[in-house]
Amino acid sequence: MAGGRAIGVDLGATNARAAVVDRSTGAIVAASKEPHVDRSPQAVVEGVARAVREVARAAAVDLGAVGCVGVGVAGQCLGATGLVMNAPNLGWRDVPLGSLLERSLSTPVRVVNDLSAAAWGEQRFGAARGIDDVVLVFVGSGVGSGLILGGRLHEGAWGVGGELGHVKVRPLRPGTRPRRCGCGMTGCLEAYTSGVNVAARVREELAAGAASAVRELVQGDLSRVSASAVDAAFEQGDGYARELWEEVGELLGTTIANVVTLLNPTRVILGGGVLLGAPHLEAIVRRVLSQQVSASAAKQLSVERAHLGDDAGVIGAALL
Amino acid sequence: MAGGRAIGVDLGATNARAAVVDRSTGAIVAASKEPHVDRSPQAVVEGVARAVREVARAAAVDLGAVGCVGVGVAGQCLGATGLVMNAPNLGWRDVPLGSLLERSLSTPVRVVNDLSAAAWGEQRFGAARGIDDVVLVFVGSGVGSGLILGGRLHEGAWGVGGELGHVKVRPLRPGTRPRRCGCGMTGCLEAYTSGVNVAARVREELAAGAASAVRELVQGDLSRVSASAVDAAFEQGDGYARELWEEVGELLGTTIANVVTLLNPTRVILGGGVLLGAPHLEAIVRRVLSQQVSASAAKQLSVERAHLGDDAGVIGAALL
Repeated sequence: MAGGRAIGVDLGATNARAAVVDRSTGAIVAASKEPHVDRSPQAVVEGVARAVREVARAAAVDLGAVGCVGVGVAGQCLGATGLVMNAPNLGWRDVPLGSLLERSLSTPVRVVNDLSAAAWGEQRFGAARGIDDVVLVFVGSGVGSGLILGGRLHEGAWGVGGELGHVKVRPLRPGTRPRRCGCGMTGCLEAYTSGVNVAARVREELAAGAASAVRELVQGDLSRVSASAVDAAFEQGDGYARELWEEVGELLGTTIANVVTLLNPTRVILGGGVLLGAPHLEAIVRRVLSQQVSASAAKQLSVERAHLGDDAGVIGAALL
Repeated sequence: MAGGRAIGVDLGATNARAAVVDRSTGAIVAASKEPHVDRSPQAVVEGVARAVREVARAAAVDLGAVGCVGVGVAGQCLGATGLVMNAPNLGWRDVPLGSLLERSLSTPVRVVNDLSAAAWGEQRFGAARGIDDVVLVFVGSGVGSGLILGGRLHEGAWGVGGELGHVKVRPLRPGTRPRRCGCGMTGCLEAYTSGVNVAARVREELAAGAASAVRELVQGDLSRVSASAVDAAFEQGDGYARELWEEVGELLGTTIANVVTLLNPTRVILGGGVLLGAPHLEAIVRRVLSQQVSASAAKQLSVERAHLGDDAGVIGAALL
């Protein structure tokens, strides 16, 4: 096992991050980042391979002895085959990432959804250490989840499980205009609650004349609208922000409660820039979750913030 | 393994059914039914033990050699401990069924939720033979589910997973009066879609003067209102039945779609008297499910009706 060390990769929209991780402590021993030259599979695979070779060299790890390199990707991955079916941030469809990378590195590669990897990292060395039933909920630019059930990562029959952002919800206010999701459907949780979609909605509503302290907070520059600006307006008692956060928090809290009622985990982990960067929204999500979850599933449940931040994915990918 | 035979029990509201099941074919070799004298844990345990001893004798199975007796109960069960936390049909709270029955039978006992048992039975010898990721959805007097994920029964960390009836939904029509669920909460799927609750709602609305062919179909006797009467009215083109089924079917279909989007099973099994006894409702549920499920999770999904009927639970309990 190469001295108890493993190699993981977090493949993001703008760069690939590789790390050598100590198997017994979860510590990152060496890390390397390669920005994508372009997003073609060839260029990205070359960048990933470079980053992997660099961290292996830096930590004096023999790639041939490491067993398997884990790669977390923001997208739908058929885990068993290494195929990335759909990675919108990279503009990829049906890219055989696993086999391309195996050829380049001459090492087995395991491809996994980035939130599955993050859930695994948090379960091994973060906010759910040693807990067998864990739901990681991520609300950042997108919305998703990673599921650990009975001590095992649940990726679904075809590796596309955990798509919390695409469960269908009905918004609180009857007048709310249906928003189309990036996936092409309407009614998706992500369309109402992700950072990108919330910011777009606030921009539209401010442009249409809505009165809110958000406008002053971004000094009239609507391109600067963000979840944290809405949270700051909420803090000031702004009515628009309050109503928006009640709606977004109700949708997120109820959906998470339903997942808990269905799966009966003992730990929910909240992660992602929107949830962790907007404390007032987080408080509403926690309140609604505790109100809406079934009494029996609520009994042994605790809700924690993610501990490992951006490192969760690369640590989890390494240790899978 | 006692000649490849196992013993299962289906513990219902009015009786206990025990069966000897052939492990290699799933066939019921001998069966016995004991009506409850009363619903006290003592009386029920005695009845179960009698039924078990009777089938064992009838099939010439040595109870001591059978390994473990499986018992499916309509209620929340802490599987590992044999504790029945809450079984509304029996009026039980915190009954240590497992240990009571083990003492009475001098044999290990495994207590499990009845829909988990049914899912296992269908997976072994019914509508999902050999499929590793299965969601059984049951809509009868109550609403619930049984989950098989990665080839294993998923009962949740404390055995209260699968409670599909208690996920929270928002009804279609803004004017719909919130209905309180048997669990004490409002907004539960079961409160809007179970046989008992649908019948209660139709009775109330007919009593309040709603015009519907259901009234003639039950010959004015509102106590005879049922899901199949609504389905018969739908068949005749009745507007009230049509609107009601659209609402109930939309709630059920969307919720099932969300479970599929989250868990990525390859088979959904529809069971229970309401779904299987109301073909027009079933058709709407299937249509909404296919419309609302994420495209990626829909790809390899098939939806089947339960095959084993009332035997699924006792077969699954035996084979767990």
